Amino acid sequence: MGKEIERKYLIKTDNYRSCSSKKYYKQGYLSTSEERVVRIRIIEEKGFITIKGKNKGATRLEYEYQIPVNEANELIDTLCIHPIIEKFRYTCKIDDLTWEIDEFLGDNTGLVIAEVELPEENYPITLPDWIGKEVTSDTKYYNSNLVKHPYKEWK
Amino acid sequence: MGKEIERKYLIKTDNYRSCSSKKYYKQGYLSTSEERVVRIRIIEEKGFITIKGKNKGATRLEYEYQIPVNEANELIDTLCIHPIIEKFRYTCKIDDLTWEIDEFLGDNTGLVIAEVELPEENYPITLPDWIGKEVTSDTKYYNSNLVKHPYKEWK
Repeated sequence: MGKEIERKYLIKTDNYRSCSSKKYYKQGYLSTSEERVVRIRIIEEKGFITIKGKNKGATRLEYEYQIPVNEANELIDTLCIHPIIEKFRYTCKIDDLTWEIDEFLGDNTGLVIAEVELPEENYPITLPDWIGKEVTSDTKYYNSNLVKHPYKEWK
Repeated sequence: MGKEIERKYLIKTDNYRSCSSKKYYKQGYLSTSEERVVRIRIIEEKGFITIKGKNKGATRLEYEYQIPVNEANELIDTLCIHPIIEKFRYTCKIDDLTWEIDEFLGDNTGLVIAEVELPEENYPITLPDWIGKEVTSDTKYYNSNLVKHPYKEWK
């Protein structure tokens, strides 16, 4: 079983860049329903299929399996809902937590979201000074929703 | 890449049982949209995730990956659309082709469908005497549609 406990934030400055490694992510969705998201993702030269359940607080069921990268590419190109999501992900370890900061590209350029994965729901977090407003429960920031409502269409 | 070329038929008699091996199948769906079906399947003690595209004639894109059977069970129980599909599949080799005959259970009891996978779209088939009407293009016989419209509700 997989469970993902995660909090999401907007950012105030790009100071996260100094502590980070950076990778290119490309992903598409086979289902964007709130009850069951199915995602195909490519991180550099690796492909994955991921299934996520509905959020309960900051917790969500998650199952992920590696698949051949050429098939991940075909699935994104031929079967996933378009447009796809592209972003640079910065990874930044602070104390015992790993922060992931996504700078979106394409129709979502300008949107930046920071996520931190937690070992349990009420785990204490020291927020870095570049962290802004929390958006954990705001579904419009879900990557699966950015497919249907990209950032460039937001008011 | 995966491509599945397959023809489906109703059956006239249960003579297929004499030539067959029989296995129990249990499967659920994370997406039943015509453009992209996502299925979790358990065959005896093995789990799979399968993605299928839209039919073009008898041809359909298909990608399948093995996953841990305990996770396949969790996915079927917690995240798949209910009700799930259960059936016995009989496998029967005749000449160079393999026939698979599904006897559905639960809300689909009474429905029996035979499928044959082909190496190419117009491959010649000698129909066994227990084969009835062809239903390849009739979407109501898709397993993914039986979730929404089980056989017991048909007139």
